[in-house]
Amino acid sequence: MMHITIWNENRHEQKNPEVKEIYPEGIHGQLKSFLEGAHTVTTATLDEPEHGLTDEVLKKTDVLLWWGHLAHEEVSDEVVEKVRQRVLEGMGLIVLHSAHFSKIFKVLMGTSCDLKWREADETERLWVVDPSHPITEGIGEYIELEREEMYGEHFDIPAPDQLVFLSWFEGGEVFRSGCTYQRGNGRIFYFRPGHETYPTYHNDKVQRVIQNAVEWAAPLSRPRPIYGNAPSIEEIKPKN
Amino acid sequence: MMHITIWNENRHEQKNPEVKEIYPEGIHGQLKSFLEGAHTVTTATLDEPEHGLTDEVLKKTDVLLWWGHLAHEEVSDEVVEKVRQRVLEGMGLIVLHSAHFSKIFKVLMGTSCDLKWREADETERLWVVDPSHPITEGIGEYIELEREEMYGEHFDIPAPDQLVFLSWFEGGEVFRSGCTYQRGNGRIFYFRPGHETYPTYHNDKVQRVIQNAVEWAAPLSRPRPIYGNAPSIEEIKPKN
Amino acid sequence: MMHITIWNENRHEQKNPEVKEIYPEGIHGQLKSFLEGAHTVTTATLDEPEHGLTDEVLKKTDVLLWWGHLAHEEVSDEVVEKVRQRVLEGMGLIVLHSAHFSKIFKVLMGTSCDLKWREADETERLWVVDPSHPITEGIGEYIELEREEMYGEHFDIPAPDQLVFLSWFEGGEVFRSGCTYQRGNGRIFYFRPGHETYPTYHNDKVQRVIQNAVEWAAPLSRPRPIYGNAPSIEEIKPKN
Amino acid sequence: MMHITIWNENRHEQKNPEVKEIYPEGIHGQLKSFLEGAHTVTTATLDEPEHGLTDEVLKKTDVLLWWGHLAHEEVSDEVVEKVRQRVLEGMGLIVLHSAHFSKIFKVLMGTSCDLKWREADETERLWVVDPSHPITEGIGEYIELEREEMYGEHFDIPAPDQLVFLSWFEGGEVFRSGCTYQRGNGRIFYFRPGHETYPTYHNDKVQRVIQNAVEWAAPLSRPRPIYGNAPSIEEIKPKN
Repeated sequence: MMHITIWNENRHEQKNPEVKEIYPEGIHGQLKSFLEGAHTVTTATLDEPEHGLTDEVLKKTDVLLWWGHLAHEEVSDEVVEKVRQRVLEGMGLIVLHSAHFSKIFKVLMGTSCDLKWREADETERLWVVDPSHPITEGIGEYIELEREEMYGEHFDIPAPDQLVFLSWFEGGEVFRSGCTYQRGNGRIFYFRPGHETYPTYHNDKVQRVIQNAVEWAAPLSRPRPIYGNAPSIEEIKPKN
Repeated sequence: MMHITIWNENRHEQKNPEVKEIYPEGIHGQLKSFLEGAHTVTTATLDEPEHGLTDEVLKKTDVLLWWGHLAHEEVSDEVVEKVRQRVLEGMGLIVLHSAHFSKIFKVLMGTSCDLKWREADETERLWVVDPSHPITEGIGEYIELEREEMYGEHFDIPAPDQLVFLSWFEGGEVFRSGCTYQRGNGRIFYFRPGHETYPTYHNDKVQRVIQNAVEWAAPLSRPRPIYGNAPSIEEIKPKN
Repeated sequence: MMHITIWNENRHEQKNPEVKEIYPEGIHGQLKSFLEGAHTVTTATLDEPEHGLTDEVLKKTDVLLWWGHLAHEEVSDEVVEKVRQRVLEGMGLIVLHSAHFSKIFKVLMGTSCDLKWREADETERLWVVDPSHPITEGIGEYIELEREEMYGEHFDIPAPDQLVFLSWFEGGEVFRSGCTYQRGNGRIFYFRPGHETYPTYHNDKVQRVIQNAVEWAAPLSRPRPIYGNAPSIEEIKPKN
Repeated sequence: MMHITIWNENRHEQKNPEVKEIYPEGIHGQLKSFLEGAHTVTTATLDEPEHGLTDEVLKKTDVLLWWGHLAHEEVSDEVVEKVRQRVLEGMGLIVLHSAHFSKIFKVLMGTSCDLKWREADETERLWVVDPSHPITEGIGEYIELEREEMYGEHFDIPAPDQLVFLSWFEGGEVFRSGCTYQRGNGRIFYFRPGHETYPTYHNDKVQRVIQNAVEWAAPLSRPRPIYGNAPSIEEIKPKN
C-alpha cells in the first residue's frame, strides 16, 4: 500500500459548469475514487498554500499524479524544483493530458513538449504497442474514446524509454499517447487522454491504465547514488 | 562545409600555467586546429559580450561545441535558453567532459547530470560498444588515454538514445562516456574525455571522434514542425 | 558513390497484369530508377541462381534493398544466413513493406514480425515523429498516400532503436511504419509502404525516404570487432 | 506465487569435481535454493527427454532461467522454437552467463551474441547504471566478485531496451552485464556472472538480482495480440 498524491489545478471545475457536472468532486476527486482502497490517497490543488505540495506531503508521497491546463505558469518554480528532486529520488510521477505543458514535465524532459491540438468531438483510439508492458495489463488491443480532444504529432519530447500506447484520431492524426521515462531513481509515465469536458476518467479502461501506471511507478527503497569526489577502489600505478 | 562554433569557458588557461602549456591557444584553439579546413570554425568564450554567442553567431552555427568547468554559473540564463532553442531548431551540440555540469546540458537532460570523479593520473580506456555508429568510424576497438580524470557511474542522465563508448578506469569505475541524444530537430553528443591538465585533445583518436561527431550532428534543412491548433485533415462525424 | 543491390521477389509482376502495368520494369526496376546516378545500382531476383545474391554480389554490396511477398519460403536458408552475416559485417539493409515477413527480417528481429492487414483502397498518412533524423530530410510533416494496404498494430517487432514514422489509416489503425535497428556493424531500416497494386514507389516523397535511408545505412570502413579469447591488457593480481 | 523452471545443461557438474564441489546439487539446484519458497520451482536438464521442457512444463512456466555452456548445440531446434514461442506469449526468460551463446538467446536477439572472454581469476565489479530499475532493488552501488571469468566488449547484441548493470574487469575490459529486452508479450533479462568454477551463485547480491529479475519478468495475463486480416473499424470512403 503506497501513498498517492493527486495534484490538480482545479480551475476548470470552478469556472465551467460542464466540467463541474462531469467531475462534481473535481478531476482530482474522480482520480482519487478509483485509486483509494488499494492505496492511501490524498489530493492537492493549485490554490492551497504551496499548492498543497509541502515538504511533508512530498516526502511521504510514493507516486504523484499531475493534471493542469490553464494555469501552468502559476505553479511556483520552487515547488516545481522540489517535485523534480523528489522524482530524481525515486518518487513516481504520472503526467496526465494537458500536463504535457506543465512546468514539471517540461523541466524533466528538456524539450518544448509542444504538439498539435484540436477540440472537435472526435474519436480517439489508443492502440497497445507494447503488450509486454505491465501498464497494459487488463487492457485489450485498444481503448476507444468516442469523444476526445485531439493531440497530434509532432510531440516534442525525447524519444520515450518505452512507448506503450499510440493514438489514432478521427481527424487524421496520430500521437505517442503512453510514454515511460526513467530519470534518476524515478519513473515517469505520460498518458494523453483526459480533456476536462469529456468523461474520460470515468472510462474503466482509462482507469485501469492509471491504476497500472501507479503500480509500475512505485519507488524502490534504494537511496540516491553517491556522487562527487570518490577514492579509488583499485590501486593506481604511478605514471612517469 | 558547415559553420562550427567552439565555445570555451577559457578560465583554466588564464590561471593555470600547466594548462596554458598544454593548450597555448586555449582548449578552444586546440579544438579549432583539427576541425578547421573541413569546416568554417569560429570560437567564443565566456568573457566576451553575450559570451560570444550573439543571436547572429547562434543563427549561423550548424554545430556548437561546449567546454566549461569552473564557471558554469556565470553563463547567463538568457544565453542558455537561446542555445537550447537553437538545438531544438536543429543545431548540433557536442558537450565535452566537464560540460556535463553546464547549464545547457542540464536543462536539455532534465536530470542532475551528477557523477563520481577523481583526479589521480589514471588510465582510461574507452571501448566502442556500437560498431555500427558513424561516430566510431576510424576508431579501433578502444581508445586508451594514459592519464585522465576519472568520471564514474552512476552518471545521472537519461538513458542515452545511443550508447557509443563505455570507459574503463584504472581505479575501478566504469562510465557511459559517449552518449547521443535527439531533442527536437537537433542532435547532441556527450563525450567524456578532456580534463584540462592532460593533453587529451592532442590525441588523434579523440580528435577523430570529435570530427565524426560534428558530421553526425549536422543539422537537417527541415524547419521546426508546426505546433498549436490544427484543423482536421479528415472529416469528423457529428456525435449524438 | 556506393554499390546498391535491389532484391525483388518479382512474382506479382509476372502474374498480375495490374502490377505489371504499374511497374513495367518490376518493383526492382522502379526502385533502381530513382537510386541510380547517385549510386551504382544492380538488381537481383528470386528466380536467378542463388537468387542473384552470390558471394561476389553480397561482398560488393554496400546497401541491400529487399522486397518480397508471395514466396518468402522459397528463399534459401543459406542465402538468408549469408545476408545476415553481411549485415553484421556492416552492409546496410532496407526492408520494404511485405518483407516484414521475409526470412532475413525475421531472423534479424527474433520475433514473429506479424501484424494486422487489410486491402481496402484506404488512405495512409505517415507522420514524421523524429524530425532530427536524417531519413526525414526533405519530407514535410507527413506523407499522404491516397490508397494503400493497411498494416496495423500490434506489429510484433523489437522496439525500434529509432522510431521515425507513424502511420494513420483511414480504417482506424496505426502502425510504426519507419523503424531503424542497429545490429552488429550494420544498420537496418524498415519502411512500410509499397503494396504491389498501388503506385507507391512512384510517389516522390516515398522515393526521397528510400534515398535518404540508403545514405543513412552506408557501411563504415571498420572491420568486425575481435571476438573470442583475449589476453588481459592490465596486470591481474594473484588471488589467495 | 509463480511457477519457475530452471534449465541447466548440467554437464560441468558431472565432469569436473571442482564444479561439483561448488554446486553439489548442480547449478540448477543452487538457483532453486534461493528462488523456492517465494515461488514453486522445478528444474529441467539437457539429458532429460525433451531436455525436461515438455509442452506441459513450458505451458505452466511463468519464468524460465537458462544456464548452458558446453553443449548448446545439443539442444534441439524444436525445443528452442517452443521456448521462443512461449517467450513471445509472455513467459519471462532469464539468460545467465554463458547462455549468451545458447540457441534460444541467439534466435531471440538475431545477432551473433559473441564477445571477448578470459579465465584468469580476475575481479569483476558490476555497477548499477539504472537506479530506477526494479532489478536493482536491494543492491548497493555495485556488486564485487573477487574472481570471475571476464566477458568483454564488443558484446554483439541489439542495444538493450534497458541497460541495468555495467561490469568493470581487472584485466582492462568493460561489459554490458545486465540487459533487458521485451519481445512479443515477454520480458527477457541477460545477467552476465556465473562461471561454473566460481561460487558466484552463492553471492547474496547476485541472488538478489536474480530474485528481482524473476519478479520483473512475470508474465501478464494478456493473450497474444490478434494478427492477420482485419476488418476496418471505421468506414472507408470509395476512391475514384
